[in-house]
Amino acid sequence: CKATKCDSFEGGLSAAKLLVESGLNPVLLEARNRVGGRTYTVQNKETKWVDLGGAYIGPTQNRILRIAKQYGVKTYKVNEEESLVHYVKGKSYAFKGPFPPVWNPLAYLDYNNLWRTMDKMGMEIPKEAPWRAPHAEEWDKMTMHQLFDQICWTRAAHRFATLFVNVNVTSEPHEVSALWFLWYIKQCGGTMRIFSTTNGGQERKFAGGASQISEAMAKELGDRVKLGRAVYGIDQTGDLVEVKTVNEEIYKAKYVILAIPPGLNLKIHFNPELPPLRNQLIHRVPMGSVIKCMVYYKENFWRKKGYCGSMVIEEEEAPISLTLDDTKPDGSVPAIMGFILARKSRKLAGLTKEERKRRICEIYARVLGSEEALDPVHYEEKNWCEEEYSGGCYTACFPPGIMTQYGRVLREPVGRLYFAGTETATEWSGYMEGAVQAGERASREVRSYFGSCTNSTLNTCPQDVLAQPFVTTFWERNLPSVGGLLKFMGVSSFLALATAAGVVAYKKGLLPQS
Amino acid sequence: CKATKCDSFEGGLSAAKLLVESGLNPVLLEARNRVGGRTYTVQNKETKWVDLGGAYIGPTQNRILRIAKQYGVKTYKVNEEESLVHYVKGKSYAFKGPFPPVWNPLAYLDYNNLWRTMDKMGMEIPKEAPWRAPHAEEWDKMTMHQLFDQICWTRAAHRFATLFVNVNVTSEPHEVSALWFLWYIKQCGGTMRIFSTTNGGQERKFAGGASQISEAMAKELGDRVKLGRAVYGIDQTGDLVEVKTVNEEIYKAKYVILAIPPGLNLKIHFNPELPPLRNQLIHRVPMGSVIKCMVYYKENFWRKKGYCGSMVIEEEEAPISLTLDDTKPDGSVPAIMGFILARKSRKLAGLTKEERKRRICEIYARVLGSEEALDPVHYEEKNWCEEEYSGGCYTACFPPGIMTQYGRVLREPVGRLYFAGTETATEWSGYMEGAVQAGERASREVRSYFGSCTNSTLNTCPQDVLAQPFVTTFWERNLPSVGGLLKFMGVSSFLALATAAGVVAYKKGLLPQS
Repeated sequence: CKATKCDSFEGGLSAAKLLVESGLNPVLLEARNRVGGRTYTVQNKETKWVDLGGAYIGPTQNRILRIAKQYGVKTYKVNEEESLVHYVKGKSYAFKGPFPPVWNPLAYLDYNNLWRTMDKMGMEIPKEAPWRAPHAEEWDKMTMHQLFDQICWTRAAHRFATLFVNVNVTSEPHEVSALWFLWYIKQCGGTMRIFSTTNGGQERKFAGGASQISEAMAKELGDRVKLGRAVYGIDQTGDLVEVKTVNEEIYKAKYVILAIPPGLNLKIHFNPELPPLRNQLIHRVPMGSVIKCMVYYKENFWRKKGYCGSMVIEEEEAPISLTLDDTKPDGSVPAIMGFILARKSRKLAGLTKEERKRRICEIYARVLGSEEALDPVHYEEKNWCEEEYSGGCYTACFPPGIMTQYGRVLREPVGRLYFAGTETATEWSGYMEGAVQAGERASREVRSYFGSCTNSTLNTCPQDVLAQPFVTTFWERNLPSVGGLLKFMGVSSFLALATAAGVVAYKKGLLPQS
Repeated sequence: CKATKCDSFEGGLSAAKLLVESGLNPVLLEARNRVGGRTYTVQNKETKWVDLGGAYIGPTQNRILRIAKQYGVKTYKVNEEESLVHYVKGKSYAFKGPFPPVWNPLAYLDYNNLWRTMDKMGMEIPKEAPWRAPHAEEWDKMTMHQLFDQICWTRAAHRFATLFVNVNVTSEPHEVSALWFLWYIKQCGGTMRIFSTTNGGQERKFAGGASQISEAMAKELGDRVKLGRAVYGIDQTGDLVEVKTVNEEIYKAKYVILAIPPGLNLKIHFNPELPPLRNQLIHRVPMGSVIKCMVYYKENFWRKKGYCGSMVIEEEEAPISLTLDDTKPDGSVPAIMGFILARKSRKLAGLTKEERKRRICEIYARVLGSEEALDPVHYEEKNWCEEEYSGGCYTACFPPGIMTQYGRVLREPVGRLYFAGTETATEWSGYMEGAVQAGERASREVRSYFGSCTNSTLNTCPQDVLAQPFVTTFWERNLPSVGGLLKFMGVSSFLALATAAGVVAYKKGLLPQS
């Protein structure tokens, strides 16, 4: 055969699809016994279907939306009709909009400045080459924890910023490079786009589950897709590239696309060895840590209380930091989806499934103020940290110093080896959308190798999922930061004092009166 | 057979040796076509022999010294007779002792406080469980760069501190956790022990090269040692553990010791999968970055100029940061060994060997003030970043946040799988000594599994390599830090001012005189 691909996710499948359309003859080798990779839809009678892996899509994710449409997979909106809840310092506050509101004026300035600053810094970072940002070196030496120490004046903002990192990249602020995290937020469209349900990354889900798309593509590719073929060896020393699988098959191809996270390149023994920078990069970009948990109830009692099911939970002892309503679009199978993130996933990995369920229900009862949360009818969970062929979820994280030193080789081909996987994308990297972008880019690279590159306009937007711009108010743009305010107050108190002193001096006749 | 081992280094060999002595029947599977792992002695006519990998040993490394003695491998002292050179701001300064002296009194206080503080913090960290240190969480959230920002007042100290991290762990201060680095220094015996040549980690080399020890052990083990057997699969689901190699052999054993860096566990497909914390740990501890370079000359001209060959080079454009004399003990084959470290190794990896040699000779000429450095007769180098079965050198580094979250599982057995490798050691981890400690510990774990654990007193000290205590002076212990000095001066200026004001007030008759 002409082309072999090692794959998880839609990335490899969409690459393979384009290659077939170009008249090439790819084979897709999948380590698992299923396609879909980090998307994983399970069907059973309790849930009808449930996405234990990647599930959310939203406006500006046009590639994955286009493919879904091609295969007739419909989207539906995650319920955000009623109020969201923000739980902090042991109390629940209902709110509307993407971020919990802040009433303390100083804290308000601090939050406002936090989002504004992150987005402003993001604007300096080229999404296809973050290592070329004007302050790349400086920001890459910093962790997000350090950056928050610099930006935030209030503890409230610092704590919420930590949750923001936990939710978006399933890591701790002190584990990740500021340059990388700011790039990540930027290439998703900014702080509002990435964090929002309505008009953001969590706006919709696929009716019937996200894996349907991979399954439909795999069906179309037929027996080109080989399951249970974990690749352990790639030999580029001969005329054809030889690919060896753990079930003792050998595939030969003119080139290979690796549509897997960079860290999983390590599962493969390479001959010849990878070049030094790539050999070290793949040891340096760990996958995040998350357990995805769905609790099922007889009724969605939260809606009756005026809550939509979204909870933002700031409480060290709570297992879950963020939830969304996971009820089916027709109102059946009431459920709440929650994430156990980063430090919490590591702490709670050792408990039994039952114990995690119990603790989750307890916090839901407290946050929603309802005993009904304690009586689930079913529970599903998936700890992605235990998956050998993912390494974690959602995506790879860059610790401080790595992006500037190794970022350049992330998608640089090595001989006849090309690199896809959502980690190599430049728009919505880390998401299904990024997987498709990367797969299509890698297939273009390979087609140009075969001299069959065509200019297709792939990235057209399905008209039913339109992106709204995020409008900032004059005040959001122009209010001072807490630091700025203090400086201003310092100057104005000085001026006020000086004026007062002048007046006193004048009145006491201490000034020359001539 | 009863036991299989995947190995590099003396670690696996010393474990195997102990197992044989206990009456067990181990097989040692080595990925490379040679034993020795990160030690690598090459013989040729230009060099006689040269250690392209791990080479240095010193007092308190009693395990590796004991084994060397058993096999009749002798040590010799690295030349430190003449002066060392410190090159900074474009000028060379000759000095004696482990650290370059500092003449500016403020900088002196700052350096003194830097070493003192690192050692004092190290004393709080249990070497067998750094995650249990009283400040473990706090220090693990910090990078060494952040810690230096807190400790150092002068740029000179901050810059030298960076070189100290580069040299000791082949990484950048912003890449590593403060908790981990302070632990690393501590378990080597402190800042003086780790950095010193005489009385420290670089005091000696093995006459004839470090790999001799591995080779002698391998010879003794005979055909139990199988070369070119990279392991790609370990299956623990049956009665015996099945180990598969890339040359398509299957070994069956009652248990397996993995004497490889944690990150290289990823080369293996596990059935069943590893537990979640171990599955994620092995993606999170990258190996450092170093190119080891030896330049050979007709004569050791530096000794004639009164230099011993040790150079500490602080200059961003210089490829090399630290050198040592590498002349043979009998004075033949004059040579200088130098390290290209961390950021510099990544920057210079793309050059040709010739170009690196040229740049290295140029900086040697400048630092030693001698044109002779420009005329080498031979050059050897080894870029460890390109080795698939090392991943880098000298050892694994912990980025911020990893030690407290994942450190516990570093040497925790998984079923019938035990973990050795110098990264799992608690004394001189990262060194040959640590490899031996870890190998012997793992073999004890396995022997106790077989019920044949004996209490041997392995750690006896060969009488010819005695450790001297490092004596600190009263002033080194008690001089203030720059911060302390400034605070003191602040208080005393205030007191002086207050006194002066009092005197003036008294003289002017402004005080009540009653």
